[in-house]
Amino acid sequence: MRMVDLIEKKRNGLSHTKAEIDFIIQGYTRNEIPDYQMSAWAMAVFFQEMNEEERANLTDAIVQSGDVIDLRAIAGIKVDKHSTGGVGDTTTLVLAPLVASVGVPVAKMSGRGLGHTGGTIDKLEAIPGFSVEITNKEFIDLVNKNKVAVIGQTENLTPADKKLYGLRDVTATVNSIPLIASSIMSKKIASGADAIVLDVKTGAGAFMKEFDKAKELAESMVKIGRDLGRETTAIISDMSQPLGFAIGNSLEIAEAIDTLKGKGPEDLTELCLTLGSHMVVLAKKANNLAEAREMLEGAIGSGKALQQFKVFVEAQKGDPSIVDNLNHLPQAKYKVKVEADVSGYVSSIVADKIGTGAMMLGAGRATKTSTIDLAVGIVLHKKIGDAVEKGEALATLHANNENINEIIERVKESYSITNKAEAPRLIYDVIGGGV
Amino acid sequence: MRMVDLIEKKRNGLSHTKAEIDFIIQGYTRNEIPDYQMSAWAMAVFFQEMNEEERANLTDAIVQSGDVIDLRAIAGIKVDKHSTGGVGDTTTLVLAPLVASVGVPVAKMSGRGLGHTGGTIDKLEAIPGFSVEITNKEFIDLVNKNKVAVIGQTENLTPADKKLYGLRDVTATVNSIPLIASSIMSKKIASGADAIVLDVKTGAGAFMKEFDKAKELAESMVKIGRDLGRETTAIISDMSQPLGFAIGNSLEIAEAIDTLKGKGPEDLTELCLTLGSHMVVLAKKANNLAEAREMLEGAIGSGKALQQFKVFVEAQKGDPSIVDNLNHLPQAKYKVKVEADVSGYVSSIVADKIGTGAMMLGAGRATKTSTIDLAVGIVLHKKIGDAVEKGEALATLHANNENINEIIERVKESYSITNKAEAPRLIYDVIGGGV
Repeated sequence: MRMVDLIEKKRNGLSHTKAEIDFIIQGYTRNEIPDYQMSAWAMAVFFQEMNEEERANLTDAIVQSGDVIDLRAIAGIKVDKHSTGGVGDTTTLVLAPLVASVGVPVAKMSGRGLGHTGGTIDKLEAIPGFSVEITNKEFIDLVNKNKVAVIGQTENLTPADKKLYGLRDVTATVNSIPLIASSIMSKKIASGADAIVLDVKTGAGAFMKEFDKAKELAESMVKIGRDLGRETTAIISDMSQPLGFAIGNSLEIAEAIDTLKGKGPEDLTELCLTLGSHMVVLAKKANNLAEAREMLEGAIGSGKALQQFKVFVEAQKGDPSIVDNLNHLPQAKYKVKVEADVSGYVSSIVADKIGTGAMMLGAGRATKTSTIDLAVGIVLHKKIGDAVEKGEALATLHANNENINEIIERVKESYSITNKAEAPRLIYDVIGGGV
Repeated sequence: MRMVDLIEKKRNGLSHTKAEIDFIIQGYTRNEIPDYQMSAWAMAVFFQEMNEEERANLTDAIVQSGDVIDLRAIAGIKVDKHSTGGVGDTTTLVLAPLVASVGVPVAKMSGRGLGHTGGTIDKLEAIPGFSVEITNKEFIDLVNKNKVAVIGQTENLTPADKKLYGLRDVTATVNSIPLIASSIMSKKIASGADAIVLDVKTGAGAFMKEFDKAKELAESMVKIGRDLGRETTAIISDMSQPLGFAIGNSLEIAEAIDTLKGKGPEDLTELCLTLGSHMVVLAKKANNLAEAREMLEGAIGSGKALQQFKVFVEAQKGDPSIVDNLNHLPQAKYKVKVEADVSGYVSSIVADKIGTGAMMLGAGRATKTSTIDLAVGIVLHKKIGDAVEKGEALATLHANNENINEIIERVKESYSITNKAEAPRLIYDVIGGGV
C-alpha cells in the first residue's frame, strides 16, 4: 500500500477500506507517513467526505493509536459527556457531582487546553488545594467510593488525533465533519466511556454556527458511537450568547456551586438538567427522561448534589469551605461595571468577543505556554431578551489590572440593544435520545 | 499574510491576488512555507481550480523564483517548442535543425529526465563527441552564427517548480490543469522564449488521455503565454500509439536524420512540418502557414535541413559522419524480431507498454541514478491500420542482453490485431494558431 495511491483514491471520491484507514493512521502515528501527505489527504477528505463505515473505522484507528483507558474495575455504566465548546460553558462542573449524586459513576478525564478560559482542570484548580495528580488506581477507587473523580489526561491518549489536529489547524482542514466527529469520538472512547452524551453547540458563538451543520455533526457522532458499541445521544443547544453568566475559572466554579444549590442561571440549570437526564437514562439509573429529571431536580432540592460536590472536592484535597463561602475562591482585585449607553432590550451578545475579552483579562491561554489568572473573568448581568436601563450594568469585569479600557469597550460593543428582543431557544434538537 | 488563511481562501473557492500568489511561491521557494501547507493548498487548487489571471500570476511567480535566461543578444524572435510527452517523440531532434535552416533562431535548453528514453540531451549524446557543456556565451554565439545550439538546463531554472512538482508527485496533486499549465509555461518563459509552440498529446499513450482534457490544457497554456506577452500556439496531436518507429536514444537520432533526409516515418514528418510551420510563422519568417510549410518542405528537399544538422553537430564537437553513416551511432549487440501470431490489421498499440519495454532494455532511467544504454531500444515495423501477416515482424528489439523474453512478450502483447483497422488522425486541433 502506498499513501500517494490512497490520497488519489480519496481525491477521486472513493471509499477507504478498514485496512487502508489503519495503514494511514498507524503510518502517520509512527511518522512513516509525512505531514505533507497527511495534509493533502485531509484536504481530499474535506472535499470528498467519508461514509459512515469509514468514519467509524477512522475513529477506531485513532483510538487504537494510543492507550485505551480500562474502566471495567468501576461498577456500573460509565457515561461521559462532551461539549463542542463555546463561551462560559460550566456544565461539566455541575453535571459531574449532579449525576454522581443519583448513582451514575463519573470517571472524568479532562484537559487544560487553549481558549477563552482554562479547561475543566484549570477551573477545578481554582479551588484551593484541589489536585488531579492522582494515580489511575486512586482514580478508580475514588469513583467506586464517591461516584465521581477527575484526573488529568493521559499523555498517550489518541496520539494520532493530537498529531492530526495540529496539522489540520495549520492547513485549513479543521472544518471537516468526518474529521471533527472522529476526533471527538475517539477521545471519548479511548477515555473508557461506555456511553456518551454530546452537547453540540450552534449559533454565533459556536464552532458550528449553522444549525444544519451542527445537526450533521451530531448525527455523525451518534452513528459512530453506536457503530463502535457505545450508546450515544446528542443534544443541539444554543450558543448564540454565552451560557450562564460567568466566564472565568473561579467565577465558573462559583456559578457551578450556585447551580448545585438551585440558584444558578436559568439556561445553565436547564441545560444541565437536560444533559444530566440523558446521562442518567444511558446509565440505566432511570427508565425515562422524565423520571431522570425528577431524580436530578430532587438531588438539587434536597442538597444531595451539593453535598456530592463537597465530598468530591475534599477527596481530591480541595478546600470544601468554598461551597459555603465563595469568597474562599481566588478573588480579583478590581471589579469594574460595564454600563449600558441606552435603554431597551438586549438583542444580541457576540459571544466570541466577550470570550476573547475574558482571555485578555488573563482567564485563558492564547498559547500553550501562557499562564492563567484563575481569579479574573467576566460576569454578565444581562442576557438576550433582558430589559436594560441606560446606565445599568450589562456586565462586571473581574480584573487584576487597572488598565482595561479596551476590554470594557469590547464588552460594551458585544451587546446590541434594541426596542424589543426575545430570549433564544435553549435546546434545538435531540439526536438518538431516549424518551 | 498567513499561509493557512490562503489555503482556506482557495479551499472556499475564492481567487488569489497577485500578491498572495507571490507570497505562496516565494515563501515555498525559501522554505518558509512548509511542504504540508503547500500540499494542502495544491489539493485545494485541484478541487477549486484557478482563474486565468491566477494562472498567469502563478506562472510568472514560478519564473521569478529562479534565474531567467536572457537571450536578447540573439537576433530574431526565439521560438521554443514543448511537447507534453509520449513514446518515441523525436520531434525536437528534427525541428531544431529544420526550422534553423529557414532562418529561425533555435536556442534550446534541454534536460535529461526520467522516462522510457533519455531526454533530448541524452539522445544527442548518442552522437560520438557531442557535448552540451558550453558556456552561456558560447551558446549565444553559436545560435547567432549557426541559428541552432543546445545547452543543458541551468541548475537554478524555476526552482519553485522543481520543488512543487516533487511534492505534487507524492501527494496525488499532479493532475491539476492550472498546476500543469503553469509548470510547463514557467519553464519555457524562464528559458528565454519570445514565442512558444506547444504539442499537447492526447490518447492512450499521453498524460492527458482524453481529448477534452488535452484541449483544456492547451487553451490554458495559450492564454497564460499571451497574458505574459509570449505569442503561443498549441496543437493537439495523437499519442494513441508511439510516434514514428524508433524508441531509444541512438535509434531516434537515426530516425531524425532519416526524417531530415525526407525518408522519415509519415506521422513524424507530418507532425514536424505542422509544428515547424507554426514556429516559422511565430518567428515572422513566413506570412502564413502554407508559406512556412513550403519553406520547410523545400529545406528538406534541397538537403539544406540535413546540412544544418551537420553544422549543428560539428559545432558542438559531435562526429558529423553519422549523418552519412548511421552505423557510426552506438549499435546494440542483438537485434531480435517480435513476430505476429496471427494475420490481420493492427488495431491498437499500447504505447506505455512499449515505452516501458524500451526502458527495461536500458533506453531510459527508472530513477535519477540509473544509467542509460544509448544503443538499445525498439523499432516498430507496424503501426495502427497496417496489414500484417502471421510470422511477419511487428517490431525489432535492439538489446545488449540476451535475456529479453519478457520484453519480447510485452511488445507482442502491446499489439492488438483484428480484421480491419484504420490509422488514427494525427492532428486533432490547433489552439490560437496563425493561418
